[in-house]
Amino acid sequence: MNQVMEQLTDKQRNEVKRQMALYSQGVQDIIPVEDLEAKVAKSILENRPLKIKLGLDPSAPDVHLGHTVVLNKLRQFQENGHIIQLIIGDFTGKIGDPTGKSVARKQLTTEEVEHNAKTYFEQFGKIVDMEKVELHYNSKWLSQLNFEDVINLAGKITVARLLERDDFDERISTGKPISLHEFFYPLMQGYDSVMLECDIELGGTDQHFNILMGRHYQEKFGKEKQVAMLMPLLEGLDGVEKMSKSKKNYIGIDEAPEEMYGKSMSIPDSLMIKYFELVTNFTPEELQRLKSDIASEEMHPRDAKMLLANTIVKMYHGKKAAEAAEKHFITVFQQGTMPEEIPVIKWNGVEEVSIIDLIVELELLTSKSEARRMIANRGVKINGEKVEDTNLVVQINEGLIVQVGKRKFVKIAK
Amino acid sequence: MNQVMEQLTDKQRNEVKRQMALYSQGVQDIIPVEDLEAKVAKSILENRPLKIKLGLDPSAPDVHLGHTVVLNKLRQFQENGHIIQLIIGDFTGKIGDPTGKSVARKQLTTEEVEHNAKTYFEQFGKIVDMEKVELHYNSKWLSQLNFEDVINLAGKITVARLLERDDFDERISTGKPISLHEFFYPLMQGYDSVMLECDIELGGTDQHFNILMGRHYQEKFGKEKQVAMLMPLLEGLDGVEKMSKSKKNYIGIDEAPEEMYGKSMSIPDSLMIKYFELVTNFTPEELQRLKSDIASEEMHPRDAKMLLANTIVKMYHGKKAAEAAEKHFITVFQQGTMPEEIPVIKWNGVEEVSIIDLIVELELLTSKSEARRMIANRGVKINGEKVEDTNLVVQINEGLIVQVGKRKFVKIAK
Repeated sequence: MNQVMEQLTDKQRNEVKRQMALYSQGVQDIIPVEDLEAKVAKSILENRPLKIKLGLDPSAPDVHLGHTVVLNKLRQFQENGHIIQLIIGDFTGKIGDPTGKSVARKQLTTEEVEHNAKTYFEQFGKIVDMEKVELHYNSKWLSQLNFEDVINLAGKITVARLLERDDFDERISTGKPISLHEFFYPLMQGYDSVMLECDIELGGTDQHFNILMGRHYQEKFGKEKQVAMLMPLLEGLDGVEKMSKSKKNYIGIDEAPEEMYGKSMSIPDSLMIKYFELVTNFTPEELQRLKSDIASEEMHPRDAKMLLANTIVKMYHGKKAAEAAEKHFITVFQQGTMPEEIPVIKWNGVEEVSIIDLIVELELLTSKSEARRMIANRGVKINGEKVEDTNLVVQINEGLIVQVGKRKFVKIAK
Repeated sequence: MNQVMEQLTDKQRNEVKRQMALYSQGVQDIIPVEDLEAKVAKSILENRPLKIKLGLDPSAPDVHLGHTVVLNKLRQFQENGHIIQLIIGDFTGKIGDPTGKSVARKQLTTEEVEHNAKTYFEQFGKIVDMEKVELHYNSKWLSQLNFEDVINLAGKITVARLLERDDFDERISTGKPISLHEFFYPLMQGYDSVMLECDIELGGTDQHFNILMGRHYQEKFGKEKQVAMLMPLLEGLDGVEKMSKSKKNYIGIDEAPEEMYGKSMSIPDSLMIKYFELVTNFTPEELQRLKSDIASEEMHPRDAKMLLANTIVKMYHGKKAAEAAEKHFITVFQQGTMPEEIPVIKWNGVEEVSIIDLIVELELLTSKSEARRMIANRGVKINGEKVEDTNLVVQINEGLIVQVGKRKFVKIAK
């Protein structure tokens, strides 16, 4: 490494430092950091872009802010001239689960895989320049392997090494079954890096083991080893669990501006800086200024959070939409009044209805138990008045306004 | 099962019993024995032969009596009209060891595999009728599997189940590495049984785990499950270790009649009945008679062992050779004289030589330490006189006779 740095001019050396500072921002772990520096230096010396890999599961194409943590990091590399390699793990998706036990891993058709990939790309296009991205489907090479190739791949790894992966280790020690085919997912991911000669692989910290498989297999196949770049997992709106669709603690990047703004405002204060760091396009300098402004109390945390919400909406819907969403938020929540425009729903039902049924009928919540809980938590209003009684019977009149939680309103038309 | 037996005539039912008694002779374990009875009954009812599988490793084609234990069992099935399926595991042989660590599992060429298979068959032909045997090379189907097929195969077994195999279990607990590809050998063996729809698989008790893989995979692929028939491992001439070429405690079926006879006579008395049971073609009745003759002292154990030696030589070299070998044995060992014909070796060495060097030079033993031990055990004679001193210096004269152990003689010519 030092050898490469020695061959650089001072200007080039500064450029290495600048890129290293940028790429290191918000990252949980770089394994090993010396290799990253060496690769960046070499790419500058030889004027050759680095190849930055991101593997994608083709079964779940709804992109939320949790996903954008790695996408924002990819964008930084792309903006500095490096090449993004997106790999759709369609080979696994097409196989499904041979034990037949996992519904989640049901077999996808070629059409489904392509449809899901397309959905991904439309959403990714909001963050990275998809025209400059290399797209790969790993079935291209994995489906070509025969039994002998697989044996060769398997011969380059030990069972003990695979059992080190946290979830395997845990299942072995608690007596839960591991199906042998599961051992192949990390192998495939590693082999993808061999085939594409990736310089860097990005992923969440939960990808630690799988990404190091890439280093392992590249070495076994006589290739230069990739660097593992692990991004922190983003906690969702609850501030505790990893953001995910199933946990309902997410902000989807396709959500409407007002919903996105409101949800962003509900992020716990303790996570605000982390969100700035991981899901916005703030530069290291802007981030530093913000931190010191908050620390010196020049900026009120509420204003900082509004800046965060505004920035997020702007990234996905543009400046105008961000301003409108902010205005809406101020009107409704900060001034305590209702928004100017409330969706109107035509009511064809009975004249008198229980508050529980009304909430479900209007699809403000999806179940009666949720409605009951929301009333108990004093989160339901009729014409601006809190509902206290879960057995309340509501007389339906023209223009009646039902509010659930902070941001859901419906006006009834008869 | 009982359903099938109920459909049989009394005569057929007796035939089932006769075959069961025959097949059970000398067997260590039948898993499960009910299935074997059901299969035999069904084969009689439907007049359909059973398929009896034996898998062969193509890398070690020298056949000794240890191998004949399963071959003799196969012959019993063949003589009752069932079909022997010999499977050459050439797929594994052609792959070699992908870790490159095992010299034993070096990659074999197609020519080597074919040559080894031919050597096997020539020797097998002395025990079973090779014209009626089905021959299979498992590369035929295994080389056709692609990655997806392999994943499907792997999806039908758990890691925990594989780790139950004694040698894997031991290596995990002592921290010795298991290369992932090793997990595939039992899978392949199991899949062979799926492809060939085997009814019974034969093997030594050390094949317990692998043969049960056949049952496992046949069930997973919706086939009728095979029966595992495990033969005891035959101890070698030392009476302790499993007979094997590397342990030098074996009787090869290609060995010369006199060597074979002499070696058979050196089997420990305690193993004599086991040898009759496992390596001769004695029927259950003949075996029973022999046992009671020995028990009632009507037959001297020495005569029983001579009968064993005679029987073994007869099986591989015919009646005449067996008689000659017996005569030779009686002349040399029982009457205490030397054989009529002693190999002559031309001596070009020095006039005086230490007894140790002489034994090694003449290739009567392969190392000086063996020579020293043999003298200490009073097993070396010069011109019929026991050598007592390991430092003895021998004057080399024309016609000098050196004897090592009971059966090795050399006459020196100058």
